[in-house]
Amino acid sequence: MSHRHLDEELAELKTKLVHMASLAEDQIDKALAALVKRDSALAYRVIERDHEVNALDVEIDEDCIRLLALHQPAARDLRLVTTGMKISTELERISDLAENVCERTIELNEEPQLKPYIDIPRMGNLARIMVKESIDAFVKDDSALARKVLAHDDLVDELMEQIFRELLSFMIEDPHTISRAIRLSFIAKYIERVADHATNIAELVVYLVEGKIIRHTSPPVSS
Amino acid sequence: MSHRHLDEELAELKTKLVHMASLAEDQIDKALAALVKRDSALAYRVIERDHEVNALDVEIDEDCIRLLALHQPAARDLRLVTTGMKISTELERISDLAENVCERTIELNEEPQLKPYIDIPRMGNLARIMVKESIDAFVKDDSALARKVLAHDDLVDELMEQIFRELLSFMIEDPHTISRAIRLSFIAKYIERVADHATNIAELVVYLVEGKIIRHTSPPVSS
Repeated sequence: MSHRHLDEELAELKTKLVHMASLAEDQIDKALAALVKRDSALAYRVIERDHEVNALDVEIDEDCIRLLALHQPAARDLRLVTTGMKISTELERISDLAENVCERTIELNEEPQLKPYIDIPRMGNLARIMVKESIDAFVKDDSALARKVLAHDDLVDELMEQIFRELLSFMIEDPHTISRAIRLSFIAKYIERVADHATNIAELVVYLVEGKIIRHTSPPVSS
Repeated sequence: MSHRHLDEELAELKTKLVHMASLAEDQIDKALAALVKRDSALAYRVIERDHEVNALDVEIDEDCIRLLALHQPAARDLRLVTTGMKISTELERISDLAENVCERTIELNEEPQLKPYIDIPRMGNLARIMVKESIDAFVKDDSALARKVLAHDDLVDELMEQIFRELLSFMIEDPHTISRAIRLSFIAKYIERVADHATNIAELVVYLVEGKIIRHTSPPVSS
């Protein structure tokens, strides 16, 4: 293993991150399916699978430490490795959020459905696409694609505002809906945070490729 | 600068992280003061100061990259540097959350105060202490102190449940309180996430010192 070329190790790192991202995207996808289909069994399976993503995070971290120790990369390659370590952490957090969505879904499934779920799955799907594109951007050194991810975040914020306003009006209309509306608002918040982590990855890519620091600000809460 | 000994650079890294942590703790402290005193001017000052913390994060990141490139540390020192980079990211997120608390506080200050703020400042103070202790643990290689931080998290979860139940009962009693109760619940959530980041730092320290992986799970939402 110590006789592998640096290029082989870097390619392997990218492959593992793509695999980890696919897992995280699948977790989001299944979490949304569990919500829409009111499928608690599926939700429990997503929760169990989080260990797999956590294990990958530890593995990638150790790979990077070993890579740094053995190959002592300089300049661009060094930054690629440290960026890879950070991306692994972001993906692990994304998977945690999918787990959180499932926990609230299981609670929601104990009660009648409050309303059709339209906007939350829309937002969730958009967040999933942002995760995918941010990793593609990293693998391809594509800062234009990374910037596209940052642009998607505006639509996520709009959907969040919309969802929140609607849930608020339910709660004001009828106090019996409050518990379910709160759980749905938490789910929406988790999805917003998934998108936030995707933009963190995109910002890391822009910094890696262009040397430019971009910071996105957190969106306002609906009044 | 390239003639500095590795030990000097590592000491400098720790010093900068302690400084960054102090800034983040102060941001939390002032955010809580802005809430309790209903002081929007103070809240705005906290929001402005977030740039300072972001700048330190970038600086520490660059210091670590340079350190890795120039000194090519091995083993323990290498892990210390990569851990330091991750801690910097956690502190930057903690400061962002203090900013989020201030944004909600400014909105809350536009309306009459819903109730005396007792539990939220208690939780916030506990979170601030956890941040301080987690950084101390890193600087002193003290995994026992790190584990203490992890234990504090249980009390944070209890306070969160308590706060949430109380706000829920306000909302069900009187729909006119919903908007303010929601904002307060968001503030409580931000503080819970500060504690979460502090435990992330503590887990990194335990891993660095003992080689053991500890993962804390996210707390349940009050039913």
